[in-house]
Amino acid sequence: MSRVPVGVSARHIHLSEEHVAFLFGQGTELTSMKPLSQPGQFAANETVEVIGPKGSFAKVRILGPARKRTQLEVSRTDAFSLGINPPVRESGDIAGSAGITIKGPAGEIAIEEGVIVAARHIHFHTSDAESLGIEDKQRLSVRLSGERGLVLANVIARVSDDYALDLHIDTDEANAAGAKTGDEAEILQ
Amino acid sequence: MSRVPVGVSARHIHLSEEHVAFLFGQGTELTSMKPLSQPGQFAANETVEVIGPKGSFAKVRILGPARKRTQLEVSRTDAFSLGINPPVRESGDIAGSAGITIKGPAGEIAIEEGVIVAARHIHFHTSDAESLGIEDKQRLSVRLSGERGLVLANVIARVSDDYALDLHIDTDEANAAGAKTGDEAEILQ
Repeated sequence: MSRVPVGVSARHIHLSEEHVAFLFGQGTELTSMKPLSQPGQFAANETVEVIGPKGSFAKVRILGPARKRTQLEVSRTDAFSLGINPPVRESGDIAGSAGITIKGPAGEIAIEEGVIVAARHIHFHTSDAESLGIEDKQRLSVRLSGERGLVLANVIARVSDDYALDLHIDTDEANAAGAKTGDEAEILQ
Repeated sequence: MSRVPVGVSARHIHLSEEHVAFLFGQGTELTSMKPLSQPGQFAANETVEVIGPKGSFAKVRILGPARKRTQLEVSRTDAFSLGINPPVRESGDIAGSAGITIKGPAGEIAIEEGVIVAARHIHFHTSDAESLGIEDKQRLSVRLSGERGLVLANVIARVSDDYALDLHIDTDEANAAGAKTGDEAEILQ
């Protein structure tokens, strides 16, 4: 039985460098409010508004640094509020995903794809994965305990020298399980 | 392996007769918009506004008929939006639960308790429970399949001659599982 810390991801957005410049003004760099569990990643001081056909969220946190492509990650509950139907996808796999309008202090853009519901996953450092006999892309079962205890199937293993051990679930999954960031889960494989 | 239909409960409220009169005016009776899966229960045409310290929901559906005590059932996600911290409870077990303000066309009241996050449960007709060897209050495990498949622990069996077979989960649980009303779940026991 292997334990893994839980990290709950609220809705957030990754922006391309081009979109940072367009939304915040040429020459703007994202600034770090606090570091995240994955090395080099941070929650930025900057936020944007995201606007769907049915609703909007005024302050969506940007996670930095800037990425190749802009990607908004929402829960299914958020998606209903916005009035969009994004697919459950791994981060980076945005072809044919949902669109959204993004508004910053310097501009507003409509993206045709880039909105996903993030597939739950565990980040493993290569050495963690080796010692547990787990391979990149493997599907795992993970138990969250408590009065709303449950076992999640199809939790995707993501293995890299750049990762720190962490189970990433969204707010729907966390709330369904009564779990919060800092709890511990068990990998059942 | 026994199959059970899934019923997803969005936030809703049950009102006492006294509160129906106070919120809608003396002599008002709730009117049925559509029948629910449990015999005699209905979604009413009438809605109320519920107002918490942090947020509100303008149109919360009333489920009828009127009950002995007023009870608001919300998801954990809803609770964060409202700014309250209700316990996970079985329906009817509201002592020491959270409070809320309720507004109708004829009045507004603040209740000190009555707000819960409903504990997931399965309604069994007595004959269903007998044939499956399941007892009232028994805790069951239930599998929801699919790309977000999971197994819910601590699903409470509720057995009565007045019930029809149905698994009741809230929107957080449904969204975490990618499930919707009309899907089928498996009772694992």
